[in-house]
Amino acid sequence: MAILILTTGGTFDKEYDELTGRLDFRSSHVPKMLALGRCRLDVRVQSWRLRDSLELDDADRAEIAAACLEAPESQVVVTHGTDTMVESGGVIAAAIAGSGTTVVLTGAMIPFAFGSSDGLFNLGSALSFVQVLPPGVYIAMNGRHFAWNRVRKNKDAGVFEEI
Amino acid sequence: MAILILTTGGTFDKEYDELTGRLDFRSSHVPKMLALGRCRLDVRVQSWRLRDSLELDDADRAEIAAACLEAPESQVVVTHGTDTMVESGGVIAAAIAGSGTTVVLTGAMIPFAFGSSDGLFNLGSALSFVQVLPPGVYIAMNGRHFAWNRVRKNKDAGVFEEI
Amino acid sequence: MAILILTTGGTFDKEYDELTGRLDFRSSHVPKMLALGRCRLDVRVQSWRLRDSLELDDADRAEIAAACLEAPESQVVVTHGTDTMVESGGVIAAAIAGSGTTVVLTGAMIPFAFGSSDGLFNLGSALSFVQVLPPGVYIAMNGRHFAWNRVRKNKDAGVFEEI
Amino acid sequence: MAILILTTGGTFDKEYDELTGRLDFRSSHVPKMLALGRCRLDVRVQSWRLRDSLELDDADRAEIAAACLEAPESQVVVTHGTDTMVESGGVIAAAIAGSGTTVVLTGAMIPFAFGSSDGLFNLGSALSFVQVLPPGVYIAMNGRHFAWNRVRKNKDAGVFEEI
Repeated sequence: MAILILTTGGTFDKEYDELTGRLDFRSSHVPKMLALGRCRLDVRVQSWRLRDSLELDDADRAEIAAACLEAPESQVVVTHGTDTMVESGGVIAAAIAGSGTTVVLTGAMIPFAFGSSDGLFNLGSALSFVQVLPPGVYIAMNGRHFAWNRVRKNKDAGVFEEI
Repeated sequence: MAILILTTGGTFDKEYDELTGRLDFRSSHVPKMLALGRCRLDVRVQSWRLRDSLELDDADRAEIAAACLEAPESQVVVTHGTDTMVESGGVIAAAIAGSGTTVVLTGAMIPFAFGSSDGLFNLGSALSFVQVLPPGVYIAMNGRHFAWNRVRKNKDAGVFEEI
Repeated sequence: MAILILTTGGTFDKEYDELTGRLDFRSSHVPKMLALGRCRLDVRVQSWRLRDSLELDDADRAEIAAACLEAPESQVVVTHGTDTMVESGGVIAAAIAGSGTTVVLTGAMIPFAFGSSDGLFNLGSALSFVQVLPPGVYIAMNGRHFAWNRVRKNKDAGVFEEI
Repeated sequence: MAILILTTGGTFDKEYDELTGRLDFRSSHVPKMLALGRCRLDVRVQSWRLRDSLELDDADRAEIAAACLEAPESQVVVTHGTDTMVESGGVIAAAIAGSGTTVVLTGAMIPFAFGSSDGLFNLGSALSFVQVLPPGVYIAMNGRHFAWNRVRKNKDAGVFEEI
C-alpha cells in the first residue's frame, strides 16, 4: 500500500538565497524530512514545480489534480502553500471524485530549512491521516484534519479553522 | 474531543548535561514541540516521571496503564522509550480493554533536543493516528502504526517492524 | 576591559514573519547568541535600530559612528548588514580617528534564526579580534579580519576579499 | 599564512548513537563547521584520533604536542575535550617552546551535533585568536583567551576562569 507525496512548493520548501537575500526554491526538502523522521512507509516522492501558492493559476491546479488522479497510489499527500491550499483542495476533489483516492494537503507556516518549522510535524501528521481516512480530500494542519470544504485559513492568526 | 499526552521519558526527552557530560532528563519537550507544530488540538499534557524505558518495572507500567484508564480523555498519546514500548503497550492494553479508549505510544530514536530528531515527526504522526483509529493500543513509529501485539523493535536496524 | 556590541540589523538579525511571509526584524538575537556561546566577556549590548544595510543613509551612519565614539568602552563590535558594511566602516573610521578605539564590524550571510547561519561563527570571531587588534576599524567575516579600507564584498561569491 | 586545525575529539565532536543510546565519535564536524562559517582562511584539518579528553594519557599528549611542533604551519588550533585541555596545553607548551608557533586549544560544552552548541562560536574565536596572538599556547573558551598556565576549568560552573 504505497503513498505518493506530490511536492508543489509553498513556504514548506522555501529557502534563503544568501546572494540575493530573497526567499526562493531550490529542491524539495521532503526526502531529507522522510530520512529525519526515519520514515519506513512505501513512499514515492514526485516533484511537481515548486511554487508560491499565491502564484498558482487554474491550469496549475488542473495539473496538480491530474497528478493525484493518475497516480497508481490511492493515498496521496500534497505539500502545498497554505494561502491557496483550500482552493486547490476543491479542484482536486472535483477531479478525483469516485476514484477511491484519499488526498491530504499539508504545508508549513515556516520554511523547513529555517529550523523552527512546523513542517516535520505536519508531514508526520499528513502521512498518518492519509493512511486511515476514507477516500476524499482533506487538509492536515495544526495537528488537525479537515474536509477540504469545511476549512479556511485564518490569515490573521496563521491557523486553519473549521467552517 | 480532547487528547491526553502522557510523557514517560525515553530518548524523546533526554538532554545533554554539560556539567556531567551525561544524558539525563530535565522536563518534557512536548509543550515546546506542540508550539513548534502550531498544534491547535485540545491537548492536555500530563508528566509522569521521565525515565529511560529500560529502567521501567512492572509497578511503573501499572501506573502508566492506570493513568491511561483513569484519564477523562478517550484518546491518549504516550511518549515512551522505544526499547520497552511494546511491553508497556501490552500492560496498557490489558488495563484499558473494553474502555473505549484509543492509546498510541510513540517515541524517538534521537533526543528532540539534539536537532536531528525524529521526535517532531513522530509526535505529529501519533496525534493524528489517535484521532482516527478505533479503540485499542497502538505504536506509531517510522510513519506507521501497529497494533501493540503485532510489532517489535528491530534493535539492529533501529526501526519498528510488523510481526 | 568591557566590550560594546552595537546591533544595527542586517541579515544577521532578520526573521521570517509567518503571517506575511516576509523577512523582517523583531529584536536582536545577539543576547541569545552570547548565551549559546557561553560568552563570559564583560559585554554590553546596545540596540541601535535594526535595519537592512541597503536602507542606511548618511545620517544613519553618522549615528552609528557617534555611538562608537561616545561609548565608554574602547572595544566595539558592530553587527551590520554585509552589503554596506565597508561604507559604514569608513564613516566610523573618520569619526573615531585618534580615539584609541578598536571597532570590528561583522554580520552574516544567513539569518541566525535560520539554523544554517554563519552568524555564531562570525560573532565569536569578531569578539576575539576586537580584544587583540590595535585601534582602528576592521571587518571580520569568513574567519578573516580586514582593515576597513582594504576589503570589499564580492557579491557574486558572497564573501569578503582583500583589495 | 596557513592554519592547521588538529582535531582530537572531546565533547565538541561527540554524537548520539541511536542504536546504542550512547555518545560516541564518528568523524570530526570541523569541516562542516568551516563550511557553515563560510570560512575562507587557508586551513588544513588533520584528524588525530577522536577521544574523550578524560581518556588521554601521557603518550597521547606527547603525540598531540609532536603534531603541533612538526606542522609546517606556525598557527595551530587544537580542538580538545575541556576536562584536560589545560593539561594538554602544558605538554604542548613544553614541546613547542622557542619554535615560534602559536597554538590555541578550544572545545565545547555541548556537542556541535546537538544544535545548542557553543562549538561554532568557539571555533570562530579560536581561529581568530590564533592569527593575532604571539607565539605560545592559549586556551580560547567563553569568548576569552588565556595563557595555558593562567587558566582552569571551573567544573561546577562549566566555564574557564583565570588563575
